[in-house]
Amino acid sequence: MTRIHIANPAGDDPFAISQAQWDHAAARHGAAGHVVSFGASPDDTEILIAPPGVLARMLPLNLPRLKMIFLTASGPDRLMPFTWLPDGVALVNNRGVHGRKIGEYVAMALLMLANRMPDYAAQQRARVWQPHFSPVLRGRRLTVVGTGDLGSGAARQARHFGMLVTGVNTSGRSHPDFDRVVTGIDAVLPDSDFIVLACPLTEQTRDLLDARRIGLLPAGAGLVNVGRGALLDMAALCARLDAGTLSGAVCDVFDPEPIAPDDRIWTTRNLVVTPHVAADDPISYNADSLDLFFVNLAAWRAGTPLPNQVDLARGY
Amino acid sequence: MTRIHIANPAGDDPFAISQAQWDHAAARHGAAGHVVSFGASPDDTEILIAPPGVLARMLPLNLPRLKMIFLTASGPDRLMPFTWLPDGVALVNNRGVHGRKIGEYVAMALLMLANRMPDYAAQQRARVWQPHFSPVLRGRRLTVVGTGDLGSGAARQARHFGMLVTGVNTSGRSHPDFDRVVTGIDAVLPDSDFIVLACPLTEQTRDLLDARRIGLLPAGAGLVNVGRGALLDMAALCARLDAGTLSGAVCDVFDPEPIAPDDRIWTTRNLVVTPHVAADDPISYNADSLDLFFVNLAAWRAGTPLPNQVDLARGY
Repeated sequence: MTRIHIANPAGDDPFAISQAQWDHAAARHGAAGHVVSFGASPDDTEILIAPPGVLARMLPLNLPRLKMIFLTASGPDRLMPFTWLPDGVALVNNRGVHGRKIGEYVAMALLMLANRMPDYAAQQRARVWQPHFSPVLRGRRLTVVGTGDLGSGAARQARHFGMLVTGVNTSGRSHPDFDRVVTGIDAVLPDSDFIVLACPLTEQTRDLLDARRIGLLPAGAGLVNVGRGALLDMAALCARLDAGTLSGAVCDVFDPEPIAPDDRIWTTRNLVVTPHVAADDPISYNADSLDLFFVNLAAWRAGTPLPNQVDLARGY
Repeated sequence: MTRIHIANPAGDDPFAISQAQWDHAAARHGAAGHVVSFGASPDDTEILIAPPGVLARMLPLNLPRLKMIFLTASGPDRLMPFTWLPDGVALVNNRGVHGRKIGEYVAMALLMLANRMPDYAAQQRARVWQPHFSPVLRGRRLTVVGTGDLGSGAARQARHFGMLVTGVNTSGRSHPDFDRVVTGIDAVLPDSDFIVLACPLTEQTRDLLDARRIGLLPAGAGLVNVGRGALLDMAALCARLDAGTLSGAVCDVFDPEPIAPDDRIWTTRNLVVTPHVAADDPISYNADSLDLFFVNLAAWRAGTPLPNQVDLARGY
């Protein structure tokens, strides 16, 4: 019998986990008998389930029996550095629940860019009827930075449409969802009709797509960012979009969020903004997260490696 | 040796067929020795290749040896009624070349509606950061009116995303790209989360989606029109969109085209407008059309039925 505390976001947040969702998930996994609490965290909490934002506001933790923290998110970047994490407490995330939804978002973004939807939106506002015929995605070259849950979800959809998909990661290991995987981003940028940023934010990836690398993209390339805002130099991207040397961008993540009202991002030419919604399906999210939680709980009880444990040195 | 005349659109239209495109297509089909002309049509023309708009300006035809007209489009609606067509001249279209491109456009449109992109575009213009989390397409119900090249191209993509796809056509015959095919549209509209109009415009389909039928769609439904503008009551659609009882629409075709500068269409809430570009890939279009032409030419020379002959009574 494990004492598990669920620290939910405040208010009527669609991602607050309900008692009924917990009960259903526990039943799916035959995991009866755990003591689960909501609201204020009991002193004898052994496992804490929380989104990173809620956890950040709970620090420093004073839970002497704590053994595991399960984040209901995949990116722990806002909790870095992990100096607040007590020794012996495993930090676990929910990587794996975002792939399907992110695949749909990236497919939409790539199709919008290929079909010049930012141009048409501007034309519609100006009441201008001007066709720009566009070829299909088939055969066009996509680079996806990151080959995890997000990147592979994006790559699967791009391959469905016949794109040639290059993944960029730190190992260069081949991956079934990608035509090839490389470690060096500079060499592939000039051959990218489109680029998708889908990697974690770490000290190694911060400002990964800086002004110099944005300049390596060919004229007319399109960009999609579903990773983190700080992965790229947003000012440099906006300058290239306003100059028309990149054809368009669809961004779901920014640094900081929300975007300030007077930020040039809102009005940059051919830039489509969504408010950090690309990866989260409100219908399946909690059930999928809890399924992963119970898989990791079973591993912890069995003393085997936790499939979703965050590597604190890598940061994801 | 057949005398073939190609009547191209004027100017630098991306869909004008070049001598080189003709030569390559003829070589692909081993069809040497035909006499092909461009520019003014010779009196001894036996086969005329033209888009409907160019053909309409050539009427009445004075080509006594004419045997076949190959339209480089699938919808001959603007040429109806066919009283101008000389007896014994076959009217053939290029149905079959639009499926891949239309599939991508419809996938994009459905994903944009599911992800509430019209809302986010309005928020971006107002500099408002307000998430609206949306579920994936999987399991949602789509009705596609028309099960031909356009409709099946749309259905294949929708099924890829796990949607439940109902086709509507005149025969009710089952089709591998659809979960089911029905003949009665009224019965399926109330169960449609999304509807795609992808059928020909005929006297039977004109105003098919009238105000009454638009009213049968459930609250929050989304609409995509890639068929013809006159298939639906646009004023009724705009009223429902402005009232918020439909969540959004993506329309590529209008009646008339171009949309008049003072038309309410431009500014209707949650209505995305593109200028009749959904079906035409400028890179592959002419080659695909000419491939179909040569298939039909071979059938004509062999005296067998022409696979792409327009049924004048049906109008497609």
